[in-house]
Amino acid sequence: MPENRLPSWNEGSAKSAILDFVSRVTTSGSKDFVNPGERIAVFDNDGTLWCEQPMQAQLFFTQDRLCDLVAMDPSLKERQPFKAFLERDINTIQGLGKQAAFEVACATHSGVTEDEFEQIARRWFATAKNPHLGRLFRRCTYRPQVELLSFLRDSGFKTFIVSGGGVDLIRSFAEDAYGVPREQIIGSSVKTRFDSSNGRTCLMKLSEVDSFDDREAKVQNISLHIGRRPILAFGNSDGDLAMLRYTKSGPGPRLALLLHHDDAVREFAYDREFRLSPLTEALDKAREFGITVVSMKRDWQTVFEASVQTRHELFGTQRTLGEISGDRTG
Amino acid sequence: MPENRLPSWNEGSAKSAILDFVSRVTTSGSKDFVNPGERIAVFDNDGTLWCEQPMQAQLFFTQDRLCDLVAMDPSLKERQPFKAFLERDINTIQGLGKQAAFEVACATHSGVTEDEFEQIARRWFATAKNPHLGRLFRRCTYRPQVELLSFLRDSGFKTFIVSGGGVDLIRSFAEDAYGVPREQIIGSSVKTRFDSSNGRTCLMKLSEVDSFDDREAKVQNISLHIGRRPILAFGNSDGDLAMLRYTKSGPGPRLALLLHHDDAVREFAYDREFRLSPLTEALDKAREFGITVVSMKRDWQTVFEASVQTRHELFGTQRTLGEISGDRTG
Repeated sequence: MPENRLPSWNEGSAKSAILDFVSRVTTSGSKDFVNPGERIAVFDNDGTLWCEQPMQAQLFFTQDRLCDLVAMDPSLKERQPFKAFLERDINTIQGLGKQAAFEVACATHSGVTEDEFEQIARRWFATAKNPHLGRLFRRCTYRPQVELLSFLRDSGFKTFIVSGGGVDLIRSFAEDAYGVPREQIIGSSVKTRFDSSNGRTCLMKLSEVDSFDDREAKVQNISLHIGRRPILAFGNSDGDLAMLRYTKSGPGPRLALLLHHDDAVREFAYDREFRLSPLTEALDKAREFGITVVSMKRDWQTVFEASVQTRHELFGTQRTLGEISGDRTG
Repeated sequence: MPENRLPSWNEGSAKSAILDFVSRVTTSGSKDFVNPGERIAVFDNDGTLWCEQPMQAQLFFTQDRLCDLVAMDPSLKERQPFKAFLERDINTIQGLGKQAAFEVACATHSGVTEDEFEQIARRWFATAKNPHLGRLFRRCTYRPQVELLSFLRDSGFKTFIVSGGGVDLIRSFAEDAYGVPREQIIGSSVKTRFDSSNGRTCLMKLSEVDSFDDREAKVQNISLHIGRRPILAFGNSDGDLAMLRYTKSGPGPRLALLLHHDDAVREFAYDREFRLSPLTEALDKAREFGITVVSMKRDWQTVFEASVQTRHELFGTQRTLGEISGDRTG
């Protein structure tokens, strides 16, 4: 096993649970040994691998896409829910709930080929910043999780992302950010149309949702895409609970982890009240389902890459989610 | 590049095209060099990696599943299309066409959990034989293709199967047969239902088709599952044409291959007349689309694993597809 493991994790029960689990499944001769091919680890993205406050990056991307689209169709300005996105009315967007908000996102990502979308997304990620953290979205990844992904791969795991976010938006940055290749990213998707009219073949993105990859759909998509029950899963909301339980209920050693955002100094403190992706049942039943709760405040020595200023340094204050939402819309 | 490459392939234009392509994309400094992460190769399964005559293995599996199901519901015996499967009436099954025949298959694979299905499939593959070849289905794989898959992986490619067959049936044997892991197999799929009623969580297979992975759907599923345009594709029927064209029309070096079954001595000779999966347009337009046609008769030194008797040895005769179908149903 590699030395100097998980340096951004504090010593404690969460780090021990991870190190112990990895040691057991990788030690040949151990009764808990798992063949490398079966070492499948799945991670939620928003709120698990990177910051999802004050709303998921995809919804900021949607705002900016809508600004481009409104030039072609000014009537969008007056139609909800587009109006809320254009006015950056985060309270109204949060009130939509996750699925409805992401369906707006899908609708605004249509009408381009998959290759064109990739270019649009890459251009956006090059400069777009999270307004509350004051840093590039692609730098809002959690350093302890990037270390964990890397540690798992060094230990023979294959790491997958299983996200409610649009699969193609995630693919446009995740290989650089997390070392997870495009074919190991599962997410929400839209229907596509095969086009060969100009002699070249391509896929056009349509506005109809094909799969909204949340809750039970995460399990269904894991089965469809991976075809193996993971042995490790990491999430942060009720949208991940089915995946965590599915992981836990296979035979042999299993580890399910739930990140609790309880760090108002370095990131944000929230759970039940985050309407776009609440954490309620998974937190209440973590013990019953054998899920290990990771406290950002207690278990992480650092949150973001050290080279970038922390939110606390930027804003010099501890704020709760309600205050954060308020200061964008009030 | 490994020595003694593709020993079961005869010297000739097809083998040269493969070796030249792999050399160009793997030679660093070459203008055609492709980074390992982008070296995606996709293979159809039925008729490309293993024998699909007199009908695809999945349809034989369906016959046997129906024999079990009819014990619970004898009325199936009198209802078409189940009756045709139960009576092993290959002519009638072929007349259904690929999609309808596979939809029957999906219907008969439902009502069990994904884990139960895996056990049923593994038990079946342990003993089920192709009646015309007289050998286990899992030994009906083509030796030159198993070599090619292995050669590509040794050259830094990631190999995927993209099949019209049911993804879970393929997953139950393909890792052993081809060295392709479960998460790199894309196929037709049924909808599933998440069940956590007994404290454990599992997925129940339903009878409704989720994706019939043929023609344009192969391209859509490659985009959904892999998220990269392949640089090499191998098929054998019109159902693979969209995938072959999609592969060819990306930038940089590309190789699309089409297996032509023209070997009545060692396997079968057929193309247009195979109603379950005809080869017509892809053959007619291969030159126009830059697709390399591989002749089984000319380009393959061996067809099946040498340790097993060949069909010719078993039957001592050359037969066309029509005669083969006839001798099961006439």
